[in-house]
Amino acid sequence: MTIGRLQGVVRIVGAGLIGTSIGLALSKLGISVVLDDSSPANIRLASDYGAGVAASAGDEPQLIIVCVPPDVTARVVAAELKAFPNAVITDVASVKSAILDELAATSADLKRYVGSHPMAGREKGGTSSGRADIFVGRPWVVAEHSEALGSSIKLVEELALDLGSTPVRMTPQAHDRAVALVSHVPQLVSSLLAGRLVGAPGVELAGQGLRDTVRIAASDPKLWVQILGANSAEVVSILDAYAEDLGRVISALKDVSKPGALATIDQTIASGNRGVGEIPGKHGSRNPQFSSYVVMIDDQPGALARLLTEIGEIGINVEDLKLEHSPGAPIGLVELQVVPSSGDKLTKELQTRGWRFA
Amino acid sequence: MTIGRLQGVVRIVGAGLIGTSIGLALSKLGISVVLDDSSPANIRLASDYGAGVAASAGDEPQLIIVCVPPDVTARVVAAELKAFPNAVITDVASVKSAILDELAATSADLKRYVGSHPMAGREKGGTSSGRADIFVGRPWVVAEHSEALGSSIKLVEELALDLGSTPVRMTPQAHDRAVALVSHVPQLVSSLLAGRLVGAPGVELAGQGLRDTVRIAASDPKLWVQILGANSAEVVSILDAYAEDLGRVISALKDVSKPGALATIDQTIASGNRGVGEIPGKHGSRNPQFSSYVVMIDDQPGALARLLTEIGEIGINVEDLKLEHSPGAPIGLVELQVVPSSGDKLTKELQTRGWRFA
Repeated sequence: MTIGRLQGVVRIVGAGLIGTSIGLALSKLGISVVLDDSSPANIRLASDYGAGVAASAGDEPQLIIVCVPPDVTARVVAAELKAFPNAVITDVASVKSAILDELAATSADLKRYVGSHPMAGREKGGTSSGRADIFVGRPWVVAEHSEALGSSIKLVEELALDLGSTPVRMTPQAHDRAVALVSHVPQLVSSLLAGRLVGAPGVELAGQGLRDTVRIAASDPKLWVQILGANSAEVVSILDAYAEDLGRVISALKDVSKPGALATIDQTIASGNRGVGEIPGKHGSRNPQFSSYVVMIDDQPGALARLLTEIGEIGINVEDLKLEHSPGAPIGLVELQVVPSSGDKLTKELQTRGWRFA
Repeated sequence: MTIGRLQGVVRIVGAGLIGTSIGLALSKLGISVVLDDSSPANIRLASDYGAGVAASAGDEPQLIIVCVPPDVTARVVAAELKAFPNAVITDVASVKSAILDELAATSADLKRYVGSHPMAGREKGGTSSGRADIFVGRPWVVAEHSEALGSSIKLVEELALDLGSTPVRMTPQAHDRAVALVSHVPQLVSSLLAGRLVGAPGVELAGQGLRDTVRIAASDPKLWVQILGANSAEVVSILDAYAEDLGRVISALKDVSKPGALATIDQTIASGNRGVGEIPGKHGSRNPQFSSYVVMIDDQPGALARLLTEIGEIGINVEDLKLEHSPGAPIGLVELQVVPSSGDKLTKELQTRGWRFA
């Protein structure tokens, strides 16, 4: 029984991380999913995980989702448009203008094509990394364009909603500009920083700040060559401005006694503060819509369970939780996040029961 | 009763985050700590938290730890050397050469001064953010210099060991070069990136990658002006190389059809991969010495408590725990970290009890 908005068969082409994850999520909703991939082993694996069944000759999909690398996406979309003349086709590549331009240069039926981009992923790629829940709560860009039928756009939005995402309509150009800012430029900035660590003395002093800043520098070069190559104009326009800002900082640091030099540094850090403040939703892994409390617990089996059992008895739901403890230390710290209206009750009741707050 | 290596009274000047944290940790070891600060309120607060007692006229400290902002550190160290002619003095500022140079230009008794730098901190500063355990397992640079007595260096190393840190002897110059690489340049790179977000459309698409990359951009401008101003030469030498790499990437992206352009992008990302690989220890916030398991739980009060109670009954200690759930979703994911030898038992016993692994 289908409990999602989508009706009919969904065909997924490419059973990597994103394709498999979509298949898992749709299958859970009772939607019929057929899987295709250039690798029969990927199809078998994704199918074993529960992401759908292998595609066969008689399939009549209503919606086709192309989840292949960016550089072959347009070609695969064009082939699917031809092979399935009644289906709406979307893709999930992280660049949108280049793919639409490539398709527009062919005789492809663009009424039935609407590109999209789920803003979701994991550090590990591949079929076996697929998870049904990676799209939940994330934006899913639906790249509307003038030739697409309204019904095609609507179907892709239904896909996004079925997977728990928030559909965001944008033109391919606006999308490419936005992801240059929030994804492609950060990737290069982080990779260039990490590149400076190669063979340099002192890396043994690295702390969490550096680790966070270069985390995404562990990403796959092959994928990024495709993405950056296909969105180079938007990336360059931001990188040029970044390089100009960097030049100003370097020139200030070259003579810090010069009038205005320290003000330049101050403004750079302060401007960064403002930029971080403009990122919506949770910062880091903490969510500002919740109130945060730190409770001390013994570092013993069962101590955290006792705490959470008592919080359950009090009737408060823990929205998020972070465990901080130093290996071998007798005390651990638990950071609890609860809705603000529960905060007073939480602290009062727990203190009455003998728990200590840090 | 003292159970640390240090004997005698320790005087801490400056009861901010680091000073208070050191006081808390030493006091726990039974070491007698006296606290001084230009703000009497800070002294009272730190003392209330258990970081030591207020300094008084007759104190005869064996070791003095100066924990004040970098720009006043040398002045305070010089005053302490004069006021306490039998004490060894260290400081914890995040730059070392400039402070030693400033002291060397006075008549200060450098035999008794050894600068140091605990590679520890928290995002929030201030007395009330102090925590005894922030130094555990972290490097603590002991900035040896030719005029310091061996016994002075040894005493500062004992301090680091008492707090659970690993003392690392380095010259002030080697220290400043290393922190430029692992801390000061990353700060600027992150701040400059975050600065590009100010007023830019598309920030609503931000994901975890951007959030991690700009997390440290939320840092205090006032503190960073001091740090960067005092270590400008080392920072510039790395930033110059970074700017050169950046220029090469921009020029490649300006014409991706040019021979070698995509190879430049590929090498940039690949070099970043290698740089990340050179960072020792745990990457991200996960600890590779533990095995990781993801269990699905209902998003209901008490569900996590039930899980942890059962893990306690099985007799397994949870080393770390991360809760991933999407607000409003009926299912949450709990990532549990346990010692590898407990992994099989954990999965088998929990599955027997009906828990599902993701």
